[in-house]
Amino acid sequence: MRIGVLTAGGDCPGLNAVIRSVVHRAVVGHGDEVIGFEDGFKGLLDGHFRPLDINAVSGILARGGTILGSARMERARLHEAAENAQELATRYGIDALIPIGGEGTLTASRMLSDAGMPVVGVPKTIDNDISSTDRTFGFDTAVMVATEAIDRLKTTAESHQRVMVVEVMGRHAGWIALESGMAGGAHGICLPERRFEVDALVKMVEERFARGKKFAVVCVAEGAHPAEGSMPYEKGAIDAYGHERFAGIGNRLAIELEHRLGKEARPVILGHVQRGGTPTAYDRVLATRFGWHAVEAVHRGDFGNMTALRGTDIVMAPLAHAVTELKTVPENRMYEAESVF
Amino acid sequence: MRIGVLTAGGDCPGLNAVIRSVVHRAVVGHGDEVIGFEDGFKGLLDGHFRPLDINAVSGILARGGTILGSARMERARLHEAAENAQELATRYGIDALIPIGGEGTLTASRMLSDAGMPVVGVPKTIDNDISSTDRTFGFDTAVMVATEAIDRLKTTAESHQRVMVVEVMGRHAGWIALESGMAGGAHGICLPERRFEVDALVKMVEERFARGKKFAVVCVAEGAHPAEGSMPYEKGAIDAYGHERFAGIGNRLAIELEHRLGKEARPVILGHVQRGGTPTAYDRVLATRFGWHAVEAVHRGDFGNMTALRGTDIVMAPLAHAVTELKTVPENRMYEAESVF
Amino acid sequence: MRIGVLTAGGDCPGLNAVIRSVVHRAVVGHGDEVIGFEDGFKGLLDGHFRPLDINAVSGILARGGTILGSARMERARLHEAAENAQELATRYGIDALIPIGGEGTLTASRMLSDAGMPVVGVPKTIDNDISSTDRTFGFDTAVMVATEAIDRLKTTAESHQRVMVVEVMGRHAGWIALESGMAGGAHGICLPERRFEVDALVKMVEERFARGKKFAVVCVAEGAHPAEGSMPYEKGAIDAYGHERFAGIGNRLAIELEHRLGKEARPVILGHVQRGGTPTAYDRVLATRFGWHAVEAVHRGDFGNMTALRGTDIVMAPLAHAVTELKTVPENRMYEAESVF
Amino acid sequence: MRIGVLTAGGDCPGLNAVIRSVVHRAVVGHGDEVIGFEDGFKGLLDGHFRPLDINAVSGILARGGTILGSARMERARLHEAAENAQELATRYGIDALIPIGGEGTLTASRMLSDAGMPVVGVPKTIDNDISSTDRTFGFDTAVMVATEAIDRLKTTAESHQRVMVVEVMGRHAGWIALESGMAGGAHGICLPERRFEVDALVKMVEERFARGKKFAVVCVAEGAHPAEGSMPYEKGAIDAYGHERFAGIGNRLAIELEHRLGKEARPVILGHVQRGGTPTAYDRVLATRFGWHAVEAVHRGDFGNMTALRGTDIVMAPLAHAVTELKTVPENRMYEAESVF
Repeated sequence: MRIGVLTAGGDCPGLNAVIRSVVHRAVVGHGDEVIGFEDGFKGLLDGHFRPLDINAVSGILARGGTILGSARMERARLHEAAENAQELATRYGIDALIPIGGEGTLTASRMLSDAGMPVVGVPKTIDNDISSTDRTFGFDTAVMVATEAIDRLKTTAESHQRVMVVEVMGRHAGWIALESGMAGGAHGICLPERRFEVDALVKMVEERFARGKKFAVVCVAEGAHPAEGSMPYEKGAIDAYGHERFAGIGNRLAIELEHRLGKEARPVILGHVQRGGTPTAYDRVLATRFGWHAVEAVHRGDFGNMTALRGTDIVMAPLAHAVTELKTVPENRMYEAESVF
Repeated sequence: MRIGVLTAGGDCPGLNAVIRSVVHRAVVGHGDEVIGFEDGFKGLLDGHFRPLDINAVSGILARGGTILGSARMERARLHEAAENAQELATRYGIDALIPIGGEGTLTASRMLSDAGMPVVGVPKTIDNDISSTDRTFGFDTAVMVATEAIDRLKTTAESHQRVMVVEVMGRHAGWIALESGMAGGAHGICLPERRFEVDALVKMVEERFARGKKFAVVCVAEGAHPAEGSMPYEKGAIDAYGHERFAGIGNRLAIELEHRLGKEARPVILGHVQRGGTPTAYDRVLATRFGWHAVEAVHRGDFGNMTALRGTDIVMAPLAHAVTELKTVPENRMYEAESVF
Repeated sequence: MRIGVLTAGGDCPGLNAVIRSVVHRAVVGHGDEVIGFEDGFKGLLDGHFRPLDINAVSGILARGGTILGSARMERARLHEAAENAQELATRYGIDALIPIGGEGTLTASRMLSDAGMPVVGVPKTIDNDISSTDRTFGFDTAVMVATEAIDRLKTTAESHQRVMVVEVMGRHAGWIALESGMAGGAHGICLPERRFEVDALVKMVEERFARGKKFAVVCVAEGAHPAEGSMPYEKGAIDAYGHERFAGIGNRLAIELEHRLGKEARPVILGHVQRGGTPTAYDRVLATRFGWHAVEAVHRGDFGNMTALRGTDIVMAPLAHAVTELKTVPENRMYEAESVF
Repeated sequence: MRIGVLTAGGDCPGLNAVIRSVVHRAVVGHGDEVIGFEDGFKGLLDGHFRPLDINAVSGILARGGTILGSARMERARLHEAAENAQELATRYGIDALIPIGGEGTLTASRMLSDAGMPVVGVPKTIDNDISSTDRTFGFDTAVMVATEAIDRLKTTAESHQRVMVVEVMGRHAGWIALESGMAGGAHGICLPERRFEVDALVKMVEERFARGKKFAVVCVAEGAHPAEGSMPYEKGAIDAYGHERFAGIGNRLAIELEHRLGKEARPVILGHVQRGGTPTAYDRVLATRFGWHAVEAVHRGDFGNMTALRGTDIVMAPLAHAVTELKTVPENRMYEAESVF
């Protein structure tokens, strides 16, 4: 068999581990050929690819990024890909395509699949918000990076008698904020799933200071929103070129808390530090299993699905379901975490 | 309510996170009182305990070890505890006991429970081999430590043209070896669940060298055994005091490989480095959830059970089941990992 | 003897290691008594202190922050302390005071010393800018944290084809930017010691992209300034409360680069993550040696000085010199680093 | 100019950083050509080399090992190299050779230099025992790895009430044991520079237990020796093939302590984990500076020397001196560390 593989969308620790695993399983396990398309679907459309043998994936397991590159693509070109799905498969002589990517990629994969390309998807998002899988790789690494930052901030916040607002990734789902907030022992956690009352945060911090605690750490997902009317300050700041900037919730919340508390509140925006670099052991194992099972699905002719973790098993889930519903943090998890506002 | 908590058995990253979570949930969430027995069941029998309030658990979330201490206890004294279960509950005025521990602790907990003590167990083992839960806390940290060691060994093995035999924990179940071997990209993995052929390992190493690769890393669980007749060298070495020593499989396998390959093979016995120190974010979250749910179970009167992870949920599993069957690495996981011998 | 110790100024990894070392050397080595003043000079003036024995410093070696607390103090009160230096020494019955702190603390220490208090200073700054010592503890940890962030950003910058501007600490001296920039392989480094030309940075990034490199990382010290006229955008942004915000060079430079390059440029402001948490082994050793030598100086009656690293030795340097001249990055170090703009 | 570079001897974190720095400075800074000989002096003699341009060293700064490979070579072949030094320089058309290596490599380099090859050495040893330089790269990484292990062992030793004997590298000089022992807070440190009394160690442990401390950690350099008569048990154990094994001081000392104390004592032999993997920021900076200055020395025609750190400066030191005297831990450093036995 001849299998194509590509990575699309934002960076995510574990992409190289999937690629390596696909090549190992296909080439060593089955005697297949593997080709890697460069820069995601762009490589597929424009004919940029290279053969991937065992040597090509040597030493990449622990490395961040993706050796194949990744580029976001306009919707129009994705449609172009879908329209030419069968022709593309023929052009490259591939029996299957394994696209590794997030929501957008999985949607595109489904279009390709519907149009006749034999596709097995591998879900990828540090946000952990794909509903058909218990976890996605990259998430554990992001949580670890955010937790280490909170660990460090806690001692320094104490020494400086400050409020720290740590903004972590998660536009629509607050998993990173929830788990790094719990792991780091943040005193407040704000999620996209529940509008938070700034007053309640202010009260929590004041009570801490009243109890003699000299600091507070608030962990806020980038997609968190204050309750209607709870935070008058709804805009970013205007930069010297007249553009609105720094409108992220981390910056705004820190300013608001400082304003109300009369105490220094510092925003820490972790940003892309969370999505690069060497993956944790957990993410490497999950990514490796996803790659292995994707190849097995190809050999079973089990197309139109993607790999998914259920409990301790890797199963196949329809690409169709993957993208219809976002997996957000449910009420009971917020209740459990105690410090969700 | 008044709740007792204790930690028993070997060290495991996350114990303090459970204690902290029990105290937070019980004291802040429910207005309970919590007392901590020192040195496991010993403190329960001998009356060594101290009250645990919020301040007592401040700053311990990320710390290894257990603030309550832990000691192994003879079977006889455990029976003594079971016989006096109700009297003990009365003596300390506790409405429930939350013992945190491994197989031995859970067995003792079950005895106490059967004898009338209201008990909610929290399972603890870095080995991940308790069958009613998908994962146990401490395991992720152990895998991370072992993986980091393999990462470091790989570059140095290459430079020195050597075979490295890394022995990791896992007497009856090979989870740590399996996952750290996969995450670190070990070329061979040996588990307690399958007797390995030394010949096959030798062949693998020779083929690697023939292909121009200058090193090999074998990750072996302490409980792995060679196939009958596969490794003539079955004993440890005799020390200067006449005792047999170094009989661990890591040491023996390295000697055997060196003997057969005519190449230096070095054992690296990670030992207790795997079970101490700060827990990973994953383990802190799981430990925190276990503690929270244990307190909830107490308040529901849901006794005789222990906390367990199923998929993404924390559920209660009978203490009775917890200890009857060991969760070992199944065939399909070995098949998946490819390098299991 | 009876020795007082205090920590003042901002957080710095290694403070606890100094305190522990002072107590170990004084109490165990010399049979002294040690008392710790709380919250820096405030504790000294207000009489908040506690005895420090071996148990009080158990387990703090690897912990960030300071068990004694630290608070900035107004100049007026420092003068009050200086005026009453001898009375204070008598009040607490201390034969010597060991203040651990940065420039401000060392200046205050010198005033106390001049006024008759027997003082041995221990310099502390993550900025590494005290001229009489080769290195200060805390610096190595700050560089390590910044380097790990750059390591992670490099893979993700590549995947997203972006320019990353990492702002690190260093108001007057660029040591952290220099060393983390070198260690992380930043493509541009901007220091307070040399005004940088934005045009030159723009050109460097454009040349990288022209050579097919898809990203660039610029590491900028918070105290770096663009050359006169080089960056029209000299102000921060105006927040919703009308205050100027985000005027830090990291934010401004990212906006400017984005404006000129027409490519996304993201600021990453590491902030206080650099100054908290567990110290590196290097910092623990240096801090421990400083504490030990401070006690020895007390016993020699060698007052009015502070501990300093020279080559591999710890020597005593006059407090007077410590604060007169800042140790900035010299020209030859910039030349060496190659990527300093 | 055309410069040859090679790495020889054991693995050491920072080798790749030197290679990268040599290439950057030579190719970008001076417009030189650089060729890299493979597997140390072997590549020089056998003609295995490859051109090194900027792309060849892209992404290697943070990677352990050496992209050029490294092999130990017999003395005879080194003499062969020395005898043909000038012919070799002519054969490859190189104007200078930059060998990066330890004592053996520097000795060979000196022979080559004396025989007419223009040589600039770069010292490399994780042991930090080269006398003309304050520090060598690789050492900081080794200390960090050993310290992290001690950190983890301390919590687990406490829980299990055990004595842990951690053996670290250092055959002739105890720098790693000294600094990781200090940084990790080991209760006993044993160095090659001073024969230790086992009785004194036993007494220290007993006193700790008497004081209610439940554990002790001893950090021992592989080259440490007990005082004459202090430890009757002087041999290793005899393995099943009749060879003496496990004769390292870590294993022997653990057995001896267990024997005398009647308490479990566990050896932890860190071995090659200390010398592989990603270098610390400190080591990357030092290695990068060494590479840069080596190229500058080449351009100044400053041959027969090696790079060295003195205080904060990089200077050139005669290769002749480098290898005549080992830099061992002096008495005052042992005194300072307090726990050296």
